[in-house]
Amino acid sequence: MELEALLRESSTKILLLVIDGLGGFADADHGTELEDASTPNLDALAGEGILGLLDPVAAGITPGSGPGHLALFGYDPLEHRLGRGVLTAAGIGVDLQPGDVAARGNLCRLADDGTVADRRAGRLADDVARELVRRASDAVDVDGVGVEIHHVKGHRVLVVLRGDLDPRVGDTDPHRTGVPPNDPTARVDEAEPTAAAVGALLRQVRDALAGEEANGLLLRGFEGHCTLPSMTERFGLRAAAVAGYPMYRGVAELVGMDVQRVSESLEDACGLAEQAWADHDFVFVHHKDADRAGEDGDRPAKEQAIADVDAIVPRLRALEPDVIAVSGDHSTPSQLAAHSWHPVPTLVWNGTERDEHERFGERWCRTGALGRRPTIELMPMLLAMAGRLDKYGA
Amino acid sequence: MELEALLRESSTKILLLVIDGLGGFADADHGTELEDASTPNLDALAGEGILGLLDPVAAGITPGSGPGHLALFGYDPLEHRLGRGVLTAAGIGVDLQPGDVAARGNLCRLADDGTVADRRAGRLADDVARELVRRASDAVDVDGVGVEIHHVKGHRVLVVLRGDLDPRVGDTDPHRTGVPPNDPTARVDEAEPTAAAVGALLRQVRDALAGEEANGLLLRGFEGHCTLPSMTERFGLRAAAVAGYPMYRGVAELVGMDVQRVSESLEDACGLAEQAWADHDFVFVHHKDADRAGEDGDRPAKEQAIADVDAIVPRLRALEPDVIAVSGDHSTPSQLAAHSWHPVPTLVWNGTERDEHERFGERWCRTGALGRRPTIELMPMLLAMAGRLDKYGA
Repeated sequence: MELEALLRESSTKILLLVIDGLGGFADADHGTELEDASTPNLDALAGEGILGLLDPVAAGITPGSGPGHLALFGYDPLEHRLGRGVLTAAGIGVDLQPGDVAARGNLCRLADDGTVADRRAGRLADDVARELVRRASDAVDVDGVGVEIHHVKGHRVLVVLRGDLDPRVGDTDPHRTGVPPNDPTARVDEAEPTAAAVGALLRQVRDALAGEEANGLLLRGFEGHCTLPSMTERFGLRAAAVAGYPMYRGVAELVGMDVQRVSESLEDACGLAEQAWADHDFVFVHHKDADRAGEDGDRPAKEQAIADVDAIVPRLRALEPDVIAVSGDHSTPSQLAAHSWHPVPTLVWNGTERDEHERFGERWCRTGALGRRPTIELMPMLLAMAGRLDKYGA
Repeated sequence: MELEALLRESSTKILLLVIDGLGGFADADHGTELEDASTPNLDALAGEGILGLLDPVAAGITPGSGPGHLALFGYDPLEHRLGRGVLTAAGIGVDLQPGDVAARGNLCRLADDGTVADRRAGRLADDVARELVRRASDAVDVDGVGVEIHHVKGHRVLVVLRGDLDPRVGDTDPHRTGVPPNDPTARVDEAEPTAAAVGALLRQVRDALAGEEANGLLLRGFEGHCTLPSMTERFGLRAAAVAGYPMYRGVAELVGMDVQRVSESLEDACGLAEQAWADHDFVFVHHKDADRAGEDGDRPAKEQAIADVDAIVPRLRALEPDVIAVSGDHSTPSQLAAHSWHPVPTLVWNGTERDEHERFGERWCRTGALGRRPTIELMPMLLAMAGRLDKYGA
């Protein structure tokens, strides 16, 4: 249900700590990574709070980071479909307007016969890639369309076309080597001008980078502009985000959070959370490492990443939030070395309510007082526990 | 899904015992009130039945008594929004017709300068208030509109305007003292005649009660008529309600139950349930005290109220219901001294099915065989367990 009509003025503050890819599953040899990690501070918080399991999207559905975070922020991930391009654009501070089209891209290496030799051009160093992007950008000039090429990280770039354009164009990235890039193809007639502009742009980039370490560009995931109602409009919250990665800053930006750039250091994250604390009602702190380790299939590293986040819990508790939630955007079991559909262990603390569990982990979350529920229900629960919702009905 | 097509003739009987505000939460010092209360009879019933947790409206939503009871009776509380005036009217046996408008009101004390001195006129005794209401009623005569002023309890009254009226009029109750009452204001043009009638009525009441202990009337929550399909239509049940409070009788009346007035005594409630038993398939017994104690923040009193209801369980079981459900319309944790969003512990017994739990309380309900589900699913479960639903599909 819509909560706007029930929102109540309050000075309470909510902290949401997201351990990316937190969830996992037990097997014959191990508990889950969270169960086996050393987490004295999270266990103490679990002992004073309540546990549950959250399902980000739907049964059996493995969420990307976009839907996972949207659900945590109280937005229906089936209603709001955010492409990675839109998220990346928002994350690096590129504002998409109606009529603009964004696509993610790789700087790649093309062989002399025009086929793709290396989709990532040897995973370029940032400074090399940045210089190549600058040269490509300077060379590009497409009639009637504004073209921006933004360096994101390593070989990864974001291309933005500005005009009155339709995004329904197929990927030029063939997603394998030994074949030529796909020609940009309009999937509907309205997207013909977009496809033509993309074709011109790719030819010009190729000319500009001829002979370089990376000499071509592969584009995928063409997307248009998108708007979401802000967390202030929907939940009455002045929200801040502390995240090291552009994509997480991106989704936070799209829901109207004040976004704090941060390195990947947990120390820096704590510092920014402390700075944001006074002027915000809701602070979202994101940490990436557990997901990365899970995707690498590296169980010890995932356990260590979780333990590292555990170590900053006392510093975050010192901010004296009224409500603390610790969860993840999805699960990344190290056995699968990939995101998965498993529910996400979740801990909520408000200083009074507790269940009988004394440790944070999936097996205890299954029978915790928070219950098992769709992730999108977390935000109403946090608002309720923070005293920010009035009674419904007489 | 709609159940009409699956309803089966049956002589089985269902008892629904509602302990208002039953649910709570554990904290560092206590279990929930239900966990800690002395409930040997409910525990015995739990040992022979199944447990679960019901969510009345939605995650994080704190229900009023109207939505909470509608959900227990199998009606979607988001689809049917009942105001307190409508519920109170139904509860005191006042039938609202299309075009009628009802408002709740307080007999109040106005100072000589016309400002509100006491919104409740010193919480009038029933007999004094009844006499003042009679005098005000006799004095009021509004052209073209039928006006009724009904005494409800203490200083509380219900005003009904009969005609072809629109209820979209703002409260005249300023909800504080030291300021004059608000003029009745139409929020839409169609409600101008209502506002004019209310203005005339309030002036006449003030004249009639000049110099009295209560010398004015404050009105709030103007509402129109509302209809719901009956439980007979929807579930094939001849239903009876046994409730001490007008509002609970009101919601029962609106879903077509035969409503038995009762004092707040549990003895009387048992007697009326026994009288209603032969001619009804579904008997709803409501008891208020646990909610009242919860709202007072009085944990021992809430535990005692639950224990008091426990004591009548043997007498109700002696009626030999085929299915017994014990639940609440919402939770009222004594720590919050208010209704809350917490799920409601629920016990269902049908003489055969059981889970492993031997006590009735939230911590056991979390893992009971009834599961955790929206309250609106209780009624189909009771019908199924009472053998009143056919198979769906071949």
